[in-house]
Amino acid sequence: MSMDEFLKYKEEIVRLRRDFHMHPELGFEEQRTSKIVEEYLKELGIKTKRMATTGVVGYLDNGENVTIALRADMDALPIQEENDVPYKSRYPGKMHACGHDAHTAMLLVAAKILSQRKLKGNVRFLFQPAEEGLNGAKRMIDDGALKGVDKIIGLHVWAELPSKVIAISPGPIMASVDHFKIIIRGKGGHGASPHQTNDPILCASSLITSLQSIVSRNISPLESAVVTVGKISGGTAFNIIPENVEMEGTVRTFSEEVRSLIERRLGEIVKHHSLALGCRGELIYKKLNSATVNDEELAQIGKEVASKITRVVEQKKTMGGEDFSEYARIIPGLFVYLGIRNEEKGIIYPHHNPRFNIDEDALPYGTAFEVLITEKLLNS
Amino acid sequence: MSMDEFLKYKEEIVRLRRDFHMHPELGFEEQRTSKIVEEYLKELGIKTKRMATTGVVGYLDNGENVTIALRADMDALPIQEENDVPYKSRYPGKMHACGHDAHTAMLLVAAKILSQRKLKGNVRFLFQPAEEGLNGAKRMIDDGALKGVDKIIGLHVWAELPSKVIAISPGPIMASVDHFKIIIRGKGGHGASPHQTNDPILCASSLITSLQSIVSRNISPLESAVVTVGKISGGTAFNIIPENVEMEGTVRTFSEEVRSLIERRLGEIVKHHSLALGCRGELIYKKLNSATVNDEELAQIGKEVASKITRVVEQKKTMGGEDFSEYARIIPGLFVYLGIRNEEKGIIYPHHNPRFNIDEDALPYGTAFEVLITEKLLNS
Amino acid sequence: MSMDEFLKYKEEIVRLRRDFHMHPELGFEEQRTSKIVEEYLKELGIKTKRMATTGVVGYLDNGENVTIALRADMDALPIQEENDVPYKSRYPGKMHACGHDAHTAMLLVAAKILSQRKLKGNVRFLFQPAEEGLNGAKRMIDDGALKGVDKIIGLHVWAELPSKVIAISPGPIMASVDHFKIIIRGKGGHGASPHQTNDPILCASSLITSLQSIVSRNISPLESAVVTVGKISGGTAFNIIPENVEMEGTVRTFSEEVRSLIERRLGEIVKHHSLALGCRGELIYKKLNSATVNDEELAQIGKEVASKITRVVEQKKTMGGEDFSEYARIIPGLFVYLGIRNEEKGIIYPHHNPRFNIDEDALPYGTAFEVLITEKLLNS
Amino acid sequence: MSMDEFLKYKEEIVRLRRDFHMHPELGFEEQRTSKIVEEYLKELGIKTKRMATTGVVGYLDNGENVTIALRADMDALPIQEENDVPYKSRYPGKMHACGHDAHTAMLLVAAKILSQRKLKGNVRFLFQPAEEGLNGAKRMIDDGALKGVDKIIGLHVWAELPSKVIAISPGPIMASVDHFKIIIRGKGGHGASPHQTNDPILCASSLITSLQSIVSRNISPLESAVVTVGKISGGTAFNIIPENVEMEGTVRTFSEEVRSLIERRLGEIVKHHSLALGCRGELIYKKLNSATVNDEELAQIGKEVASKITRVVEQKKTMGGEDFSEYARIIPGLFVYLGIRNEEKGIIYPHHNPRFNIDEDALPYGTAFEVLITEKLLNS
Repeated sequence: MSMDEFLKYKEEIVRLRRDFHMHPELGFEEQRTSKIVEEYLKELGIKTKRMATTGVVGYLDNGENVTIALRADMDALPIQEENDVPYKSRYPGKMHACGHDAHTAMLLVAAKILSQRKLKGNVRFLFQPAEEGLNGAKRMIDDGALKGVDKIIGLHVWAELPSKVIAISPGPIMASVDHFKIIIRGKGGHGASPHQTNDPILCASSLITSLQSIVSRNISPLESAVVTVGKISGGTAFNIIPENVEMEGTVRTFSEEVRSLIERRLGEIVKHHSLALGCRGELIYKKLNSATVNDEELAQIGKEVASKITRVVEQKKTMGGEDFSEYARIIPGLFVYLGIRNEEKGIIYPHHNPRFNIDEDALPYGTAFEVLITEKLLNS
Repeated sequence: MSMDEFLKYKEEIVRLRRDFHMHPELGFEEQRTSKIVEEYLKELGIKTKRMATTGVVGYLDNGENVTIALRADMDALPIQEENDVPYKSRYPGKMHACGHDAHTAMLLVAAKILSQRKLKGNVRFLFQPAEEGLNGAKRMIDDGALKGVDKIIGLHVWAELPSKVIAISPGPIMASVDHFKIIIRGKGGHGASPHQTNDPILCASSLITSLQSIVSRNISPLESAVVTVGKISGGTAFNIIPENVEMEGTVRTFSEEVRSLIERRLGEIVKHHSLALGCRGELIYKKLNSATVNDEELAQIGKEVASKITRVVEQKKTMGGEDFSEYARIIPGLFVYLGIRNEEKGIIYPHHNPRFNIDEDALPYGTAFEVLITEKLLNS
Repeated sequence: MSMDEFLKYKEEIVRLRRDFHMHPELGFEEQRTSKIVEEYLKELGIKTKRMATTGVVGYLDNGENVTIALRADMDALPIQEENDVPYKSRYPGKMHACGHDAHTAMLLVAAKILSQRKLKGNVRFLFQPAEEGLNGAKRMIDDGALKGVDKIIGLHVWAELPSKVIAISPGPIMASVDHFKIIIRGKGGHGASPHQTNDPILCASSLITSLQSIVSRNISPLESAVVTVGKISGGTAFNIIPENVEMEGTVRTFSEEVRSLIERRLGEIVKHHSLALGCRGELIYKKLNSATVNDEELAQIGKEVASKITRVVEQKKTMGGEDFSEYARIIPGLFVYLGIRNEEKGIIYPHHNPRFNIDEDALPYGTAFEVLITEKLLNS
Repeated sequence: MSMDEFLKYKEEIVRLRRDFHMHPELGFEEQRTSKIVEEYLKELGIKTKRMATTGVVGYLDNGENVTIALRADMDALPIQEENDVPYKSRYPGKMHACGHDAHTAMLLVAAKILSQRKLKGNVRFLFQPAEEGLNGAKRMIDDGALKGVDKIIGLHVWAELPSKVIAISPGPIMASVDHFKIIIRGKGGHGASPHQTNDPILCASSLITSLQSIVSRNISPLESAVVTVGKISGGTAFNIIPENVEMEGTVRTFSEEVRSLIERRLGEIVKHHSLALGCRGELIYKKLNSATVNDEELAQIGKEVASKITRVVEQKKTMGGEDFSEYARIIPGLFVYLGIRNEEKGIIYPHHNPRFNIDEDALPYGTAFEVLITEKLLNS
């Protein structure tokens, strides 16, 4: 199919996207969205199955041995939209400010087109809930979404790229995301008698200072890593030394080796800084997402496919996270970026901003990419 | 008067004390207490005046030029009493857990006795509200409580001293109490992109670590000083670097010179640690109480007077604070301690403890001391 | 020319290399080496000029407008050789442990070959002294070595690569190298009276701890940077607080923007940490080498040329430095790596190791690359 | 004896003092001094014994059971005298800049006088070497100097006190002096590859910062303590992370409890800060002198005796050390201070200063005190 043919679907994609945009639903609450998805797929003759509460999986099966999955996420954000558009969010305090409305719309139309094509293999459509910090991907996998799937493709609209440009890179492109909590247990007492206490606020301070050494000294300068403490809280009164201080933070990196190293070093620093100051430290470390790592071969194929319909550039890595990584850990995956920035139209705001918007002219290119790479992978 | 004569007043003192104990009132809410005090003094023929809202000042004037003030504080604490005694607090969540009930009772009876004695000078009775952290003393002074007063005597029951023992020392005995708040203003942002932020949590940590150097390096080891951060709070999520961090703490010392030095050093450290890490630091420093410093001569006289009725010991300094300091900054003052500990009776709990209690056998010694030192100061 | 033709020169390259290897000379002391280079070039009819004391520049001019430079470094290291080979270093405590002997030999033979070829441009041969930490490149440039040169090619034998493999990457490949010195001036005094001093040892400690935040918080996790304090020294006696503490360290990075940021942050931290603790801090920051950045186009051409004679791989960046960067800052430059590791022959030791050696079978590939890329650049 | 009688000895004391002053000898090198002392005592009929190499002990025995010791120290300092006086030091680079010349002279004359008095007890004269940092006192005790002694008196001329004034206080007056050495063993390596090392310089910095918490948090604000790191040294080059860092410092306090606490806390901080940063820390803690603590009763007697001949004041504690503490740990001891400051004569320089001098008019008061307290202790 030529790009011209895909452009004919623009109206439908936009109509779907605007409908989702007006009715944004938070993670695991995508009731309306998933119902529309389900019905749309059924009308195409595609069998569907519910997964992860509000997720929908479509099965376009041709009795072949090869299966390619295409994934879209459906959840919105707890943000009050500030755009003044006819299709503005109807739900106060909720907004599709990350483009998942477009992801769902593009993939539905890709399903329609693919259902009409002759394919030498099966296609699996993953309409996933709860990408924003809730790891809906993991839930989909637990419910069997990847069963029998060979490769998976994901696509994200991207506000930093000019409209219609597609960005693809092999290897790591989004960081792993971990959460940690540190509890320092000291001994409280009167602020005027520090010698009768073990001051957990001083201990926490010393510890945070020392955590900087993980990135500055323990990680190769050629690797990327972040250790951030985002929250600290301890004490109730100016003149009382508290019993405990709690901290929460995040770790980001692209390599499992570095990730393990950081977890180990965090543990050592928490333990020994606490003991040095007469306290006991506890580290609760929770891995959220892995790094999103594109398969080398898929990336190469993706570039070739995309370059037939638009300009293709390298995608720069970011320390942000994406739960597409959960799929790509298990089977070869490719996560590509579709530019939707258009300065002439004033579409310049970053993701998660109340003024985030999408140049809808780009959307047929997303659908086209999904269709074409599927055909390429199944038919060549 | 001999001690035997004072002991005859024990029953009255105890009755008054128990009544106050059953009806504890917090700072500036001493409505019932002050009304009782007022009426008691009026019956003695002592003129009274309201000051500091719920404070009462009694004037026993003999037309002389010399005036000695005796001070008692009247406020209770927001503590739920756990003693099982007939005179247990009737007011839930409030308790005389620092002995101010006894202070008021002892001084009322001292006023009765003094009103019957021939004195070559005037006596001023200061029944002060709100000693516990609200600096009622300052309000009394502002309202004129010290006008025309030459010297002032205060007395505190003390759980660390054996019953009936009186402790007196010249010079500094209780520390100055200051409150400080530090606000670190950085630049917030995503926890995965620390380079786009100025991390106020790291800045606060570095700063708290550095604050230790004030006591360890800037203050003479022969002086006493405390700099405590009792509270720290910053951030709302594990993956967001916040804009601000706030800390609160207290400074204690005995010398105005050291106090000024600490305030200056705090300011320097807050300013420059913040600038070193790209933040702006703000220090809000508030002096609460000065150190309580006993007049040398009064202490000597106090020891002589007390040794006629009981055992006298030296009082050890504490870093705790007392707003009696406000009076003693202006005129010569003496603050003495009356032992009320009695292990046999199970009276062993510290001040501000829900089981704090008083060996009432000691109370006549407090009244006796107040009467005798007043006579000594006016008549000899 | 085919690789077979180049292989005929192997004996000559090896002979030259072994001669240089037996007579290693330290930076700016390359008297014997440079004399041999000079005579060799003169015999080829190539005009020479002395630069940077012991450097030699050869001019193969054809009266054309285009000039390509080829650079070899000539200096050895102050290391005692531990290899047991017939051509072992004759000079005690000196050794060609970084392969500069091979660089010189390969380039001499490349000059011989190029002097016999028909070229549509000029070739400049840069035999540079003092690459090891003395920045001989800068001295060569100051003496005019790059005058009229359009592009420059450098080649380094590399112990981490299998023999004969050539590694080439576009963009930054070796880090910039800076030196810094920090002097903390406090106020000395008796160790028993810290309050009469401003302790520079505590100040330096606090500062080094805070320096970690540059890499951990101020630099993008997607950039590479190192800030190392390698030396600290202060004080003469256990019981005397000294006047001063001195530190020395190094900064490494690939980007001028990051480099400037680090220099600025170092200055801010030194200044404000010192002021926070009553000291004065001084930062003396000296840029040694810039990052070595390969020209994109030259890298592409290099890959093509090399792939005709051997296997070509990507070169991984290192935080080590190389003064070839001085040339490549001014004109487009390409720095390539020639594998010389051969485990079967026991050639496995890293650079600067007393057992470092070279698989001499690889050397004709270096000469071939130098000849072929020159021809490619001048004749196509 | 009246003060007038003592004043007759002034000339002799001054003559002796000036002779010692002209011939200063460092610790354990007091050959000339001890020979003069020995001969002087022998002429008085006082038996002598050598101890601690250059120490001299005189025995004025009356066959009684009670023995009082009087102690003087004899060593000078490695300082070049800058006073322009006829009796200026004859030995370049050596000077009696702490008054030990006067101590020896005063005690010799006291011995003369006491040898002529009728005493109901024995007197032991301790002429001790090496007080300045070498703990000659310990050596004297090891050699038996205190055998059979009941009480000991020491006297120090004092530049901060006006001439002739005697200062005496009960309890602790000079601090204990301890020496510590900390070795941090990390893992060295190239400054560009911190992740392959365990940086001992960062570890030492973090540790020194944390040491501040001992004084600021672990010691009661009512106690006195100093923890000073006076020396730090690590690393040989700006671009190499060293294997080790070494630190040396001192601890001062007045209480054995606090001293033990500090030693323990030092150990904990050294151990755990090292482990937190991947290093191993070693603490070598050496107790030099104990605190000098005056016996309460002796202090009272001393005040009474001194007040008969001069003005007596309280002596302020100092964090400086004195090995007289070694004697006073074992038997009741009293260490008193004799003022020798005289601004009119320009005698204003502190101890250990090249312009330190003594108002010799004060010296007979020292002799008088030594004689009178001995008589008081033996005869009353």
